[in-house]
Amino acid sequence: MKELLQHLKSTVAISDQHLEVVSAKFTEQHFSKKEHLLYFDHYAKRLYFTAKGCLRTYAIDFNGVEHNVSFAVENWWSGDLKSFLNKESAICNIQALEDSLVFSINRENWDCLVREIPAFVSYTRILFRNKLFAQQDRIIQNLSFTAKERYHHFLQEYPNLSQRIPQKYIASYLGITPEFLSMLRSRMKK
Amino acid sequence: MKELLQHLKSTVAISDQHLEVVSAKFTEQHFSKKEHLLYFDHYAKRLYFTAKGCLRTYAIDFNGVEHNVSFAVENWWSGDLKSFLNKESAICNIQALEDSLVFSINRENWDCLVREIPAFVSYTRILFRNKLFAQQDRIIQNLSFTAKERYHHFLQEYPNLSQRIPQKYIASYLGITPEFLSMLRSRMKK
Repeated sequence: MKELLQHLKSTVAISDQHLEVVSAKFTEQHFSKKEHLLYFDHYAKRLYFTAKGCLRTYAIDFNGVEHNVSFAVENWWSGDLKSFLNKESAICNIQALEDSLVFSINRENWDCLVREIPAFVSYTRILFRNKLFAQQDRIIQNLSFTAKERYHHFLQEYPNLSQRIPQKYIASYLGITPEFLSMLRSRMKK
Repeated sequence: MKELLQHLKSTVAISDQHLEVVSAKFTEQHFSKKEHLLYFDHYAKRLYFTAKGCLRTYAIDFNGVEHNVSFAVENWWSGDLKSFLNKESAICNIQALEDSLVFSINRENWDCLVREIPAFVSYTRILFRNKLFAQQDRIIQNLSFTAKERYHHFLQEYPNLSQRIPQKYIASYLGITPEFLSMLRSRMKK
C-alpha cells in the first residue's frame, strides 16, 4: 500500500495513525492485461488508485465504437465517480492495458474515511479540484484546438504515456482516426 | 441577494446568521448585454452567480475563432475557477448575452467564507461535484455522440436555453457550424 500512502503524504499533512486507518480501508487487487475493472451500465462499486500498470476508461457510442476518455498510470485514480457517489449506472468501462496493481476502495469505506479522517477529505478535495481543472482544459481543447494541437498538448502533458499506450487508443482519446494520428507522427519526425 | 441565499438554502442546511455573513461577502453587479465580465489572459478576480440574465463563457482559438464553453442563466455560476483559485491567467472570456444581474465574490471573501462557514464549504463541494459530473458527461458526449445526438441532449438537458441563446452560440457550444445546426433544426420540424 506504500504507493497510495506516499501519494497521500505528498499531497496533504496526515498523521501516521490516520495513514494506518486509510490503509486498512483499501484492498489490493491485481488485474491482468485486457481484464475489465468496470463495465458500462453496472454500478461502480469501487474507485481505483493505480500503483503499477495502466488503465483506460472508455465509453461506447450507439454504434458500438469505443472512445477513450482517460488513462491512468502510477499514482493516478480511475473510476466512474458519478456512478460511485450517486449509486447510478456507470457510463464508462475501465480496462487494464497492462498487468496492473491497484488499491481500491468501496463506498462504505470511502464514506467512513470522509467521516473520520479530515486529511482524507482534504486529499479528495484536491483530487476533485485537479480533475475539475483538467476536464475544463480538455473541454476547451476539444472545442478550440486542432487535432495537431491536441496531440502536441498530449505529448507535453503526458510525455510517458505515448510510449506505453497503443497509438490507436491515443487516437481515440484525441478524437481522431489512427491513420490521421500516424500521419501527424510521421510529419513530426521530418 | 435573495436569489443567491435561496439557492444556498435549497442546497444545504444553513442558519440565518450564516446567511447574513455570506450575503455581506457578495457584491451586486449589473452588466449590459455584450459587456464582458472577464477577458482571457486576465486574472479571474471574481466568481459570478447569475440572479437574472444570461452569461456565456468562451475560449478563443489560435485563429481567433470563438468557442462557447458554457452558458449560465438564473441560479448558475460562472467563472474561470482555475484562474480564480490558482491565481493564474484566465483561459476563458465571460460575456453577458442579456442585461444581467449577478452577485460576485472576490478571492479574499471566498477564502473567508470557506474558513468561517462550514455550510458554505458544503455548498461549494456540491457545486464542484455537480460541475465535475457535468464535465465528465460533456467530454464523453464530445467524443462519442454525433452532432445530432449532442443537440438532442442539449435540448433535453437545457430546455429553456435554446429559446434565449442565439443559435450561432449554441452551434459553437456543440462544436458544429451554424449552418449544420440550422439543417438539424429544420429536419427535426419535419
